Amino acid sequence: MTTRAELTEKIVAHKTFNDIKWADVATAVGQSKEWVTAALMGQISLSKDQIEKAGNALGLNFSDEETALLMTVPYRGSLPSAVPTDPLIYRLYEVISVYGTTMKTLIEEEFGDGIMSAIDFTMDISREENPAGDRVKIVLDGKFLPYKMY
Amino acid sequence: MTTRAELTEKIVAHKTFNDIKWADVATAVGQSKEWVTAALMGQISLSKDQIEKAGNALGLNFSDEETALLMTVPYRGSLPSAVPTDPLIYRLYEVISVYGTTMKTLIEEEFGDGIMSAIDFTMDISREENPAGDRVKIVLDGKFLPYKMY
Amino acid sequence: MTTRAELTEKIVAHKTFNDIKWADVATAVGQSKEWVTAALMGQISLSKDQIEKAGNALGLNFSDEETALLMTVPYRGSLPSAVPTDPLIYRLYEVISVYGTTMKTLIEEEFGDGIMSAIDFTMDISREENPAGDRVKIVLDGKFLPYKMY
Amino acid sequence: MTTRAELTEKIVAHKTFNDIKWADVATAVGQSKEWVTAALMGQISLSKDQIEKAGNALGLNFSDEETALLMTVPYRGSLPSAVPTDPLIYRLYEVISVYGTTMKTLIEEEFGDGIMSAIDFTMDISREENPAGDRVKIVLDGKFLPYKMY
Amino acid sequence: MTTRAELTEKIVAHKTFNDIKWADVATAVGQSKEWVTAALMGQISLSKDQIEKAGNALGLNFSDEETALLMTVPYRGSLPSAVPTDPLIYRLYEVISVYGTTMKTLIEEEFGDGIMSAIDFTMDISREENPAGDRVKIVLDGKFLPYKMY
Amino acid sequence: MTTRAELTEKIVAHKTFNDIKWADVATAVGQSKEWVTAALMGQISLSKDQIEKAGNALGLNFSDEETALLMTVPYRGSLPSAVPTDPLIYRLYEVISVYGTTMKTLIEEEFGDGIMSAIDFTMDISREENPAGDRVKIVLDGKFLPYKMY
Amino acid sequence: MTTRAELTEKIVAHKTFNDIKWADVATAVGQSKEWVTAALMGQISLSKDQIEKAGNALGLNFSDEETALLMTVPYRGSLPSAVPTDPLIYRLYEVISVYGTTMKTLIEEEFGDGIMSAIDFTMDISREENPAGDRVKIVLDGKFLPYKMY
Amino acid sequence: MTTRAELTEKIVAHKTFNDIKWADVATAVGQSKEWVTAALMGQISLSKDQIEKAGNALGLNFSDEETALLMTVPYRGSLPSAVPTDPLIYRLYEVISVYGTTMKTLIEEEFGDGIMSAIDFTMDISREENPAGDRVKIVLDGKFLPYKMY
Amino acid sequence: MTTRAELTEKIVAHKTFNDIKWADVATAVGQSKEWVTAALMGQISLSKDQIEKAGNALGLNFSDEETALLMTVPYRGSLPSAVPTDPLIYRLYEVISVYGTTMKTLIEEEFGDGIMSAIDFTMDISREENPAGDRVKIVLDGKFLPYKMY
Amino acid sequence: MTTRAELTEKIVAHKTFNDIKWADVATAVGQSKEWVTAALMGQISLSKDQIEKAGNALGLNFSDEETALLMTVPYRGSLPSAVPTDPLIYRLYEVISVYGTTMKTLIEEEFGDGIMSAIDFTMDISREENPAGDRVKIVLDGKFLPYKMY
Repeated sequence: MTTRAELTEKIVAHKTFNDIKWADVATAVGQSKEWVTAALMGQISLSKDQIEKAGNALGLNFSDEETALLMTVPYRGSLPSAVPTDPLIYRLYEVISVYGTTMKTLIEEEFGDGIMSAIDFTMDISREENPAGDRVKIVLDGKFLPYKMY
Repeated sequence: MTTRAELTEKIVAHKTFNDIKWADVATAVGQSKEWVTAALMGQISLSKDQIEKAGNALGLNFSDEETALLMTVPYRGSLPSAVPTDPLIYRLYEVISVYGTTMKTLIEEEFGDGIMSAIDFTMDISREENPAGDRVKIVLDGKFLPYKMY
Repeated sequence: MTTRAELTEKIVAHKTFNDIKWADVATAVGQSKEWVTAALMGQISLSKDQIEKAGNALGLNFSDEETALLMTVPYRGSLPSAVPTDPLIYRLYEVISVYGTTMKTLIEEEFGDGIMSAIDFTMDISREENPAGDRVKIVLDGKFLPYKMY
Repeated sequence: MTTRAELTEKIVAHKTFNDIKWADVATAVGQSKEWVTAALMGQISLSKDQIEKAGNALGLNFSDEETALLMTVPYRGSLPSAVPTDPLIYRLYEVISVYGTTMKTLIEEEFGDGIMSAIDFTMDISREENPAGDRVKIVLDGKFLPYKMY
Repeated sequence: MTTRAELTEKIVAHKTFNDIKWADVATAVGQSKEWVTAALMGQISLSKDQIEKAGNALGLNFSDEETALLMTVPYRGSLPSAVPTDPLIYRLYEVISVYGTTMKTLIEEEFGDGIMSAIDFTMDISREENPAGDRVKIVLDGKFLPYKMY
Repeated sequence: MTTRAELTEKIVAHKTFNDIKWADVATAVGQSKEWVTAALMGQISLSKDQIEKAGNALGLNFSDEETALLMTVPYRGSLPSAVPTDPLIYRLYEVISVYGTTMKTLIEEEFGDGIMSAIDFTMDISREENPAGDRVKIVLDGKFLPYKMY
Repeated sequence: MTTRAELTEKIVAHKTFNDIKWADVATAVGQSKEWVTAALMGQISLSKDQIEKAGNALGLNFSDEETALLMTVPYRGSLPSAVPTDPLIYRLYEVISVYGTTMKTLIEEEFGDGIMSAIDFTMDISREENPAGDRVKIVLDGKFLPYKMY
Repeated sequence: MTTRAELTEKIVAHKTFNDIKWADVATAVGQSKEWVTAALMGQISLSKDQIEKAGNALGLNFSDEETALLMTVPYRGSLPSAVPTDPLIYRLYEVISVYGTTMKTLIEEEFGDGIMSAIDFTMDISREENPAGDRVKIVLDGKFLPYKMY
Repeated sequence: MTTRAELTEKIVAHKTFNDIKWADVATAVGQSKEWVTAALMGQISLSKDQIEKAGNALGLNFSDEETALLMTVPYRGSLPSAVPTDPLIYRLYEVISVYGTTMKTLIEEEFGDGIMSAIDFTMDISREENPAGDRVKIVLDGKFLPYKMY
Repeated sequence: MTTRAELTEKIVAHKTFNDIKWADVATAVGQSKEWVTAALMGQISLSKDQIEKAGNALGLNFSDEETALLMTVPYRGSLPSAVPTDPLIYRLYEVISVYGTTMKTLIEEEFGDGIMSAIDFTMDISREENPAGDRVKIVLDGKFLPYKMY
């Protein structure tokens, strides 16, 4: 029996070997590259129609068993340990570890007591050209949800 | 002996009771509100001059012992556990837990093998007005650092 | 050899692909949807008769080996880590992390020293319509068990 | 310097010794007993006015330092370890450990992919009379927040 | 401010230095030695009357602050780590680690699916004379609580 | 290659499906039900003769590879995590977590400094009839081993 | 209030500053240097008489509070984390980590199924002169305790 | 593909079933029983010649793949968790947990600041006859390595 | 499906059995031995051309599936636990555990507040002849990256 | 009572406030800056004479209690958690996490089976000028210690 993790590895290996771009798969599916990549990395469920379109763009013909896996809402969480070991992902964790209380106090000062939603949420990853070396720009954008008195 | 953590608590309690804004302290110090807040939350060291300006803006007269603490480069890390328990901070951790491998593959596709720096790095936290409920917008901006062959 | 976890995955994938509802399986088995779902998710043992009825409703013909797995009282615990990473399940964990001591003091004030049973216990999950957005309503209902002097 | 945890212990010891009810403090503050108790247990911030009313109801005269602590949005999380050791609180954790994937699949079947908010959220704790032994009834009620495509 | 843990240490040191027996304190309080010892070790709350009797038997005059601590239902859990390091206590943990699944299958075979209550529960610790060396006999006695279908 | 854990699962599934009792297997082997069950659950090694008798009683014909596994002294420890998640086993862990220091001080008061052996040790699990609900009675009986001066 | 850990630190600092040898304290107490050192490091309880003799040898006059601490059977475990960070102690841990299964299989081959007691146990630490560099010789000597059938 | 752990299990099962002694394998290889057992338990690499001799003594004909595994310097560490669950191995861990700081202070008093090597190290495990019950004697013998000033 | 870890094991076993040197593979690939070894140990991605050259030098003919694995940027992190158990690797961890704060304060005194990059980074491992025993010399060389005010 | 950690904080705060260099303290003590800094950061013991010289260089007059602390061989380990949170120290940990198995295989290929000593060990931290940005150069230099057959 194939697991969701094995299917992710198969998709990534196929994409790498054949030099396919996530953005092209996203165009075929008709959603943003961030959303489609997350889905194919095993964090979001897809409809049968989206799976077929993604399969065509990738040049993979998903079996019924694979399609069922991609349709199921996954048990989310893409990392093998609570503290990530991969340097690219660790740097993001470090930002939260170091600046987490700073972010908290600044958001609470601006909005009052509440949180930034991680569900009503989008992210955008882009390249920013810079003569001193190009920069990665990550925009996290989530609805503010206030705690309420009752 | 005062610890750095106790000094942070003292600053925050004083700020809250007297309704002082981080942005006003930042203006007095002459740096961004993100940088100054992080410094006063115990994650960045300040110069004697900056400490005096911050003290004036806060209405706190820092002792020599407190000044020495604020001058020392801290052992960074602002959270009491590897997985944060505070909901506002947890949501940021969740974004990395769920979308970390997505961010990794998209950055690597765009830039090649490397990371986003968490040192040559700035962040910006702002309010985005929205009729469906205002949104928190967090921009993380770091230099791309490529792994090199040697 | 099939494991209990693999059997759960097979049942969920089959249900998803064929768009079968848990409530319909529950009706076939003759118990509540919460109880039957928990059993098929690997947390409660079923009788041979119940397994046959569930298999019919799902359109799955369980083998003797699979039937033995579903009959065995499982080593309970449905999550792969002490702190859940899946956002839906994490929110429930967060409620306990944040409000656990509040629940404790309110229950003890009302009932005296003791606990709410998690065994003589039922739960009910329903949708509550609301113009500001529908709500999830989870009712946890357990017998109060007092500590006794002896 | 007093910490938030020490202030909580002081409030609880005072309440216990003088046999004051949370419900009476809540009435004085003008909010539900669940909300007011959580605030005094250190998980929600209070306004100066609410702090004065709570102090009167408790027969405690909070100092400026204590008032500042009660006004500050806390770093939430009321438990000393990821897995709670207290039996009353552990039983709630066990419910999530055992039935977490059941809750997930039933909510997703009913609402689609998303979560129950732990912020736009209320809880209600009550006693249910029962000849076989009274029962604890905990109602968790949170807005459903759907994941969105973008 | 005294903490519950410091009060426990004070009681134990006083008892040890003055060679007082737990059984004598228990007689004064009017409950079993197991129950009274657990209460004074910080795991069960006592009434004002019981506290006064225990104080007399110990030769300690508890202050109001100490009495309030002994009256409060404690956050239970007497060990500083999830796996105990003390050899006497570790041996009990080892019994569960090694024989836990054996106990589970034997209880389930005899009683059906359910648990032994740790609340409607008593324990008895006694010495059993034996020419090959005296033995410790620990009897754990708890009500069987069956899981129910609903 | 079969592992010891897979062999345990095979034995338990076979026993459950065919409704065989541990006590009957124990009678065939000629030892107590607690000892034989623990051995077949993978915590005690058996002799070739005992393995053959157990196989006959179970209706399983163990291969040479399986016999070798059952003959090998196992790396003991029957639980997948330091804190057990299964409710039946957790309750026993909770007893130690809550009452561990109580047991320690009572045993030390009675016997002096030392431990209860978990090796020169027997356990007995039985049903105690009770009109208020039958009770599980677990007797742990181990030799007292004193620490010695040298 | 003094804790046991603080008393240990006081004894060690005093011993170090005044260049007193553990062996001399042991002679005064009348037991081996290993036993007496372990007791003063907080892992074994002492009698009033032994405490007085040790105090004289150290040149410390223990108060009643300190004497009570030294008389109490400690919650054993001398290390601040499960895996020791101190290199001298870590090397011993490493020996077990690397050679643990080797020790297990050799002891079981020689003695049958059982353990080496850590209670009916002595240790001896000595210097072994060697032209290639002196060697530390640690002898662990414990009674073999066999598992028994019952 | 065979893993090193599976090969260890195969060797142990074969040895157990055929009642072969480690000492006899060691004689064939021409090294001590401690060294040869550790190598075959997967903690030391062997040469092709040693592997052939060990194979002959065991009656196992190692394949090229198995030989390659036995030739590779292993990632050392023979235990599945940081705190061992097996009682025989745990007792050794307990000795370090309880007496670690005692060993440290005694070695440092005798030798100065440094460690006992776990590399320039031998161990010897033997049976010591004793009318009160035979004893396990473990001798750990390692070169003292001093920290140096520079 | 082959995993990246299995491929690493295959390469290492093949290299060991056939006595191939990493330096020779590195020469064939045209990069340093440190970089090429890290890549083949699964921590750096290789191009198709480099994979072919490495395969020729090793005498391994990588399949398309294996080539895809070697081309994919890996989820970095080469150790199975946060604290390494292998003695060679542990010694490096110990250096950081013991001297980490020393390194931090010396680098910050020399360079100001910032870090040594682990990305714009090379390492060199060499043998240093020494009559008192040859020495391992590890040079870590990374760009200093200063924290900036903004 | 002062702890070793508090004394370290006092020394660092004093050094920072008065802008004293570690190198100058090292010159006064007569050892390398790496060794002296490590000692004053609490990881190496100093003699009375060295403590007096260091005190003079720092302008601190150590009390007898402080001197005793600095004379005692510390329980080594300078970090508050197994995985360091401070970015400067984390980068060193990351190097081991990512390249640990690479270092292991290269050292073993060059030297045979053994380790680099962390005791017969020196380190050197220096600045390397570079037009593309100065570099941190850390040299770790330890004696190779071979595992021996016996």
